[in-house]
Amino acid sequence: MERTHISQLFADMDELGGTTVTVAGWVRSVRDMKNFGFVMLNDGSCFKDLQVVMNRETLANYDEIAATGVGSSLVVTGSLALTPERPQPFELQAAQIRVEGASAPDYPMQKKRQTREFLRTQQHLRSRTNLFRAVFRVRSVAAYAIHRFFQERGFVYVNTPIITTSDAEGAGEMFRVTTLDVENPPRTEQGTVDWSQDFFGHAANLTVSGQLQAENFALSFGDVYTFGPTFRAENSNTRRHAAEFWMVEPEMAFCDLAGDMACVEEMLKYVINYVMGACPDEMEFFNKFVDKGLIERLTHVATSDFAHVTYTEAIQILQEAAAAGHVFEYPVEWGCDLQTEHERFLTEEHFKRPTFVTDYPAAIKAFYMRLNDDGKTVAAVDCLVPGIGEIVGGSQREERLDVLERRIAELGMEPEQYKYYLDLRRYGGCQHAGFGLGFERMVMYLTGVDNIRDVIPHPRTVGNADF
Amino acid sequence: MERTHISQLFADMDELGGTTVTVAGWVRSVRDMKNFGFVMLNDGSCFKDLQVVMNRETLANYDEIAATGVGSSLVVTGSLALTPERPQPFELQAAQIRVEGASAPDYPMQKKRQTREFLRTQQHLRSRTNLFRAVFRVRSVAAYAIHRFFQERGFVYVNTPIITTSDAEGAGEMFRVTTLDVENPPRTEQGTVDWSQDFFGHAANLTVSGQLQAENFALSFGDVYTFGPTFRAENSNTRRHAAEFWMVEPEMAFCDLAGDMACVEEMLKYVINYVMGACPDEMEFFNKFVDKGLIERLTHVATSDFAHVTYTEAIQILQEAAAAGHVFEYPVEWGCDLQTEHERFLTEEHFKRPTFVTDYPAAIKAFYMRLNDDGKTVAAVDCLVPGIGEIVGGSQREERLDVLERRIAELGMEPEQYKYYLDLRRYGGCQHAGFGLGFERMVMYLTGVDNIRDVIPHPRTVGNADF
Repeated sequence: MERTHISQLFADMDELGGTTVTVAGWVRSVRDMKNFGFVMLNDGSCFKDLQVVMNRETLANYDEIAATGVGSSLVVTGSLALTPERPQPFELQAAQIRVEGASAPDYPMQKKRQTREFLRTQQHLRSRTNLFRAVFRVRSVAAYAIHRFFQERGFVYVNTPIITTSDAEGAGEMFRVTTLDVENPPRTEQGTVDWSQDFFGHAANLTVSGQLQAENFALSFGDVYTFGPTFRAENSNTRRHAAEFWMVEPEMAFCDLAGDMACVEEMLKYVINYVMGACPDEMEFFNKFVDKGLIERLTHVATSDFAHVTYTEAIQILQEAAAAGHVFEYPVEWGCDLQTEHERFLTEEHFKRPTFVTDYPAAIKAFYMRLNDDGKTVAAVDCLVPGIGEIVGGSQREERLDVLERRIAELGMEPEQYKYYLDLRRYGGCQHAGFGLGFERMVMYLTGVDNIRDVIPHPRTVGNADF
Repeated sequence: MERTHISQLFADMDELGGTTVTVAGWVRSVRDMKNFGFVMLNDGSCFKDLQVVMNRETLANYDEIAATGVGSSLVVTGSLALTPERPQPFELQAAQIRVEGASAPDYPMQKKRQTREFLRTQQHLRSRTNLFRAVFRVRSVAAYAIHRFFQERGFVYVNTPIITTSDAEGAGEMFRVTTLDVENPPRTEQGTVDWSQDFFGHAANLTVSGQLQAENFALSFGDVYTFGPTFRAENSNTRRHAAEFWMVEPEMAFCDLAGDMACVEEMLKYVINYVMGACPDEMEFFNKFVDKGLIERLTHVATSDFAHVTYTEAIQILQEAAAAGHVFEYPVEWGCDLQTEHERFLTEEHFKRPTFVTDYPAAIKAFYMRLNDDGKTVAAVDCLVPGIGEIVGGSQREERLDVLERRIAELGMEPEQYKYYLDLRRYGGCQHAGFGLGFERMVMYLTGVDNIRDVIPHPRTVGNADF
């Protein structure tokens, strides 16, 4: 079947006007005016619907089509008539309409407004609604923008492993991966589970981050990035957490914290501009129906120089705001972790633009972050953006073997587990830095959608792994 | 630090010749000629090394650099001298060289030739060798080519779930994912493990394919693709199998088997051409040192019309070859699965070009493939390529609800598990088709590397999940 995508009709309407084309898609609505009628058809190739005009005189199966249910799939052949005087630029005057697949009357996606909670129970069908059609197109385009950004700059894409026997963050909360019979696992003489008999000869887990392995490749390719799924077995039920989510983790050799931040800023602006350029209809929809300030906010981020502040300065700013009467739920003092309310105050009210906070206390950051000369802070950075708070976290990595070994010992971690990581400091180590972008958080930021369950095709959260 | 990538020196040598630049990279070799010497430096930005010339008279730390070990990282500032009369087009005349990170004398990547088996024990360092530098660059570029191909054609990239409670293929061999305490899991009154207390409220596994979920999105977006990790807990130790590998799974609505094959052929040619264009040095290296016929074979595939043959015809061809004296290890008769030897005979000796084999017996193919009118074959296709055999498997999907329900019942599968999948046939179903490309197999094909362990950054196989 030679069919034309509806997106192509919009792109090439001047050439296609007056010609005969065949389109195929799903019925969004049918209006029967007795002797003529309208079918709004969407084929998923673009956000817009195509208006199909049908006429009782010329269409043998007019009554069948007029009675077609929402969601049915049709194949329509007709003449493309330009209609510059109407709201839509053209319509398809149907010569022939074939029902490819009818939709049963209990179709759950009837035109009436559905709650997002209900639609989460219809994950196999919800991408037929305007909201999810827009969200998942933007998700796809944003993913591509990220690949383009890094590939254009010569970064090598590295697929770091999903199954791992080490715990990158030392943070626990990992999913176990096994082929042992959990009903009756093999046991050692001491009676404990004999993991040496498991598939990999060791207990294995799902990765929480590809960073440590990405460093292996940064120290040979210079600039690399990962883009893949990561996992947290956190028993938390919030709008911002999922058990399975995709992360982008760039890692750059011969790069310090300043270079790291420059890359974050350039990447965020690139992705925002790319998505706004490639998905104007979707962005307009979000701006109208999901988050009225969205386009203004994104444009602001894409055109502002990001602010820079150290953690120590940020604490002062927050304490002064509290002294001046601003009420924070969590108290602020040097050494505390910044809460979302603090982050949002800094980026939304104080700096009024995206803000890098740097040089956090070592005690609240990961072992691999580079110790500053003050001996108490590390070369870490969080990037805060208005409306969401932290969107990126990164750091310069500790490249000094002795400092890193001391840190691993201090934290009571097992040096044997980090042999390979330490090797990178033994054999031609260098200054290097990287960051992590939670991809779903980026999609939420781009769309204004405020629940992570609504930006993942089939989200996995506590108690939910359906579909 | 303002540094210039070595790739940029090669790209812009005419503008940069005569200017002062700073480069940073890792030592590949040092030759000390007493009063002057040469350092070959690679920074990972391209396959080629940079020749650095150092002179005892002008370099204060000449002796330190002359004694530098292989693998050390250096920062070099100097003048770029064009040398059109020499094999390399330019060299860097060092004014200053700083050792960023020394390499310990026990560096395992000394210049001598290492076996690939040994290098598999050095996965954190092996990408510093020519072979793995070339393989992982090509892997990255091929991944990008795949995204470009589909995005340029309007396909929506869908991240199908990694953790799943269903078994797409009905094939078993899945990894269990759990947060239960395997030492002492909660049990029901009947004494069996109580999976309802597991993280997702059900027993969950790692996905073997994103196809079924991709169909959800094809039936709203029309054209979609996945590109993500998939898993098989197969206890097989071959050169072509890994427990964790990446798959590309496009799915197209209003598309039949012929359209499916057209997409496979166009995609394979696109990726081959893109990689050959973007990685000429790497491809030349493979052609010289890994697989002497590689470039000729890939060029042939990129410029041939693929052959088409039905399974039934293919069986005849193989039987005639056997009758004429060709010795196959496995006997050939209608109904049998084709072995690699059969596939390679068809594509290498009979058709001498890439070959689509279609319409396999239903009994040896998956439940979701569309039943042909003969009632005994299905609209399946395997794409065979010279040198490797099967590289892509696909099918038109069964869109007829009654036929699909009957098939699920015949196979004794649980219809409840496939409710969502069947819904797609209840509500506006349509003809659709898709295929799966094993990404590692594509990388092996592009590079000539014959072991899957050598095209995955950190491979996971039976007994191996290190690094």
